[in-house]
Parts: sequence; C-alpha cells; structure tokens
Amino acid sequence: MATKSLNLVTVKHRIAAEERSLSNKHRGGVLWFTGLPGSGKSTLAIETEHRLFQLGRQVYVLDGDNVRQGLSSDLGFSPEDRTENIRRIGEVAALFADAGLIVVTAFISPYREDREIARKAAGDLFHEIYIDADVATCEGRDPKGHWKLARAGKIPEYTGVSAPYEDPEKPEFVVDTQNLSINECVDELVQYIEQKLVV
Amino acid sequence: MATKSLNLVTVKHRIAAEERSLSNKHRGGVLWFTGLPGSGKSTLAIETEHRLFQLGRQVYVLDGDNVRQGLSSDLGFSPEDRTENIRRIGEVAALFADAGLIVVTAFISPYREDREIARKAAGDLFHEIYIDADVATCEGRDPKGHWKLARAGKIPEYTGVSAPYEDPEKPEFVVDTQNLSINECVDELVQYIEQKLVV
Repeated sequence: MATKSLNLVTVKHRIAAEERSLSNKHRGGVLWFTGLPGSGKSTLAIETEHRLFQLGRQVYVLDGDNVRQGLSSDLGFSPEDRTENIRRIGEVAALFADAGLIVVTAFISPYREDREIARKAAGDLFHEIYIDADVATCEGRDPKGHWKLARAGKIPEYTGVSAPYEDPEKPEFVVDTQNLSINECVDELVQYIEQKLVV
Repeated sequence: MATKSLNLVTVKHRIAAEERSLSNKHRGGVLWFTGLPGSGKSTLAIETEHRLFQLGRQVYVLDGDNVRQGLSSDLGFSPEDRTENIRRIGEVAALFADAGLIVVTAFISPYREDREIARKAAGDLFHEIYIDADVATCEGRDPKGHWKLARAGKIPEYTGVSAPYEDPEKPEFVVDTQNLSINECVDELVQYIEQKLVV
C-alpha cells in the first residue's frame, strides 16, 4: 500500500518570500508605530491601511481593538504583562510579514527593549515608525479623556504621566503629528511604505 | 492650530470583509487541520498552500515550525500549556482570516474543548478538517521516530500513546489519509476550500 509510506518529513517546501512578492507586487513588512497615548498611532494606522488597500496592497492593522480582547485577553497592564503583550504582537506581526502582508501595528510600546524584541522577530522586515508628538500636545488632544484621568491618579501606570515613554533612538521613519495634519501624515507614511516595499 | 484638534476616536473605519473578498476574489477562512501525530497534517497543509498559491489565493500555513519557536516559545507540552498554545493559534488564525487570508493550521489539537475555543475566535470563518488516520497507520509511518520513542516511554504525554486524542464529532470536512495518496488528499482539500471560499 503506497499510502503507508506517506512521507511526512521531506516535502517541506514553503512558499518563498520572493514568490509572494512577485504575486503581490510588494514585499511583506512590519510597520511598527510607536508613540505616546494620543499621538495618533491608531488613527494613522487605519487611514494608512485604507490608502494602501486602495492601491491594491495586502495590508492589515494590529491594534488594541483586535489584540487585547483576543490574543492578549489573559494579560493586564503591569510592566511584565505589557512586555509579554508586545512580544506576542511582535511575533504575530512577523508571521503576517512572512505571509507577504504589510502589517501596521499601533501600540504605545513604550520600552526600547520590548521594541527590540519585536524587531528581532521580524528581522529585515521591521520598520520602527515614531509617531511623534510631545506630552503637551497629546494631553491637549486627550480624545478619550485618559490623560485627565491619569493626572487625577485614576489610571495607574499611564504612559507619559506615571509610566515612562522611551522614544526611539534610530527609528526608520518619523512622522511629526504635532505640526502636520492627518492627511499630510498619511501622505508621508504611504510614500515611505510604497518606496520601501513595492517592487 | 488645526492639528491640535486631531480627532483620534471617530475615524475608525476598517476595511470590510466584503471589500477584501472582492479584491482577493475569495473570502478569508481558517482551515483547522486536526489529527494524530503522523496523520499527515503538516505535509498536507504545505502541499495545499502550494496548490492554492498557484491558483492565486492569499494563503498561509501556521504549524509547529513557525509558532512553537516564536509566539509560543514560552510554552511547554503540559495540558495547560497545550491549551494556551491552541488558544493563541486560534486567535492568530482568526486575525489572518479577518485580514482576508486562507490560513491553514496544522496542529494535533487533541482536545475538543480547545478546538471549540479556536472555532469561537474565528466564528463563521472556521472550518474543522479532520486529517483522518488511525493509530496503527500513523504508528506504522512514524516518520520522525516519535511513536517508537513514546512507546518506549521516552516522550511523555504523547498523543495516541500516553495522552488522549478526541476525534472531531462534526468536522466540516474529513480527509482519509489512510486510504488516499497525498495528491488525492490535496485534490479533495483544494476542492473543498475553493468551493467554500472563492467568490
């Protein structure tokens, strides 16, 4: 019976990254947005996704909305849990990039060391993007009222108030959301991504 | 300054599943392969991925090779860790399907309850596929020599020997790897997937 000799080990030829690039007309990549709460990460991620989708790219956003209630639902907001959350997101983002997608992640990810772990997971496919706005600007926007609550001591370990934010030392790209409009920021992001990933 | 009023909350319009389907010409979906060690899950997953890729589908395989060393590198093989491993894979697979991909997962996933958790994560997009071969057949193949080691007591909690396998009660699809060749199995899988997901 031929089936008894079904060989389960040798036939492991995955789709090569080049084959996926050729088919999609762009490489996979992790666009890792980092910045203070209120800096604009999630808004810019969603807008950038829309723009890239309209250009025919395979693109997906990972953010608190689709990660915190699922993959990381067992984690809280202690430093250890934040680190584990970012580690998992880094690994998942690397899988998406390996699948040929442009994945945009929108998480504060305040610690340099955690972001380095995410970088290692994706290797060359990782792009750290600093969504840059200072504390005064982010606090002035305060769209969810979280800064105010944090100042009043009602949200513990809030980044920018009672927990540190370590800004990127050598990010691949910086977007100045303090002085540019949303549209201008998205223009710059899309231009950067297209230049780096489209083949 | 217009930028101070950057509105971070309201502009949350993600790409709809229908838009992704239209663009890809197929829906996203989770093809959850389950079966004994040696049943052919990983081989069939990789072969199915190849065939679907050649048909122009967006497709990706999650298996031990790309999950155990990354996302689940903190987990071992105790019942609790296996459950957490399958939970995470279920969540990640659901994200891939949400991104419009056909994701094929190749894990023993021996417990019905764990597979139900994975099903819940992906909802309607979940397809349980039983990669069916009995213990005698799988043990007869033993491509990695693991069955032999497990019988000798050298691998603890080995599914089929010293740990249970709960076969699916109502799988969406069954592939008989005991009596069909690899090619025949892949033919059936691709036919099922194309029929269910191509629009």
